[in-house]
Amino acid sequence: MELYGYYRSTSSYRVRIALALKGLDYQALPVNLLKGEQRGSDYLALNPQGRVPALRTDQGDLLLQSPAIIEYLEELQPQPALLPADPVGRARARAVAAIIGCDIHPLHNVSVLNRLRAAGQDEAQVNAWIGHWIGQGLAAVEQLIGDQGFCLGAEPGLADLYLIPQVYAAERFNIDLGGYPRIRRVVALAAEHPAFIVAHPSRQVDTPVQ
Amino acid sequence: MELYGYYRSTSSYRVRIALALKGLDYQALPVNLLKGEQRGSDYLALNPQGRVPALRTDQGDLLLQSPAIIEYLEELQPQPALLPADPVGRARARAVAAIIGCDIHPLHNVSVLNRLRAAGQDEAQVNAWIGHWIGQGLAAVEQLIGDQGFCLGAEPGLADLYLIPQVYAAERFNIDLGGYPRIRRVVALAAEHPAFIVAHPSRQVDTPVQ
Repeated sequence: MELYGYYRSTSSYRVRIALALKGLDYQALPVNLLKGEQRGSDYLALNPQGRVPALRTDQGDLLLQSPAIIEYLEELQPQPALLPADPVGRARARAVAAIIGCDIHPLHNVSVLNRLRAAGQDEAQVNAWIGHWIGQGLAAVEQLIGDQGFCLGAEPGLADLYLIPQVYAAERFNIDLGGYPRIRRVVALAAEHPAFIVAHPSRQVDTPVQ
Repeated sequence: MELYGYYRSTSSYRVRIALALKGLDYQALPVNLLKGEQRGSDYLALNPQGRVPALRTDQGDLLLQSPAIIEYLEELQPQPALLPADPVGRARARAVAAIIGCDIHPLHNVSVLNRLRAAGQDEAQVNAWIGHWIGQGLAAVEQLIGDQGFCLGAEPGLADLYLIPQVYAAERFNIDLGGYPRIRRVVALAAEHPAFIVAHPSRQVDTPVQ
């Protein structure tokens, strides 16, 4: 498989964690969002939405959108499972994923922040915007995850692979995580877990040399 | 089952279509977003995120977030299927759902628009914001759906139950759909389909009398 992505894109980061948890090999094909490569004609011919990530399957199909790619990986290789077996448990994991994937991340991605700036919002206003949506969303996640282990169990799963990249973004934006002890517990566990370590933005092929 | 929702909420509307396509009965429990009932202590005790929809299962579990609820319904009652059987087809349907559910709808929901107004954006700026995100997203959907039938096949499925509520929202915002002939074809088909008719915001228990 081939993964079009960007080291610091949180949605690419989610997919990398899913691939690593399942032990699936892939070739990383970086798309430099800072240079606007996602809007280049080559990439748009592949992906008309001009976003990352996109996954090329071994059969040559190009799959878009991280929620769809992650469910595909779960169906392609069911073990280790990202979702529990019972439908209610699966819905609880997908709800955490949706809070992050729909109600937090879309409101602070680069294109949205640039649109706010173009509409005359200054950096203090942009930062207040980011802090509002991340804070509101993480507060909901904090109430929905469990008291021990990863978000919803002893092993990492769907909720965790959404949460850890979202926390990475929150830290880039200097959001205080002091009010979220459960989330901080999950972050500490993930920091020691090989799949989360290998998927981290600091160690991708397109990570800039410091 | 019981569905906490609001007649004009596009994410509630999605779930209503899914329930209707599967022929599942439910009791509608309206939450009046205009009156702020989603932020009342009664509702927040149920759903800490204070959003609709939420689904109470027959076993009493409360499920949040429309993407999670819709996947739950698909698992609870697999036929008629919202998703095709093959993993790549499933990923294509979920990608359309994610474009609408992550990249369009979150950017124009009421809380986001009110936040823009609170940040000093006037109505012309708010309308330009809405038009930008809906236009960009629908342009991608237009390229990803098929040339006949519903979005991705002869029968309606996951992509359609995201698209039709999104188009309803676009029309409320006076977005021109002239550039999207495939989407307009799907809209015309849905207008004649019983599940889409019964789920329409114009005929819910909380729809205001004209």
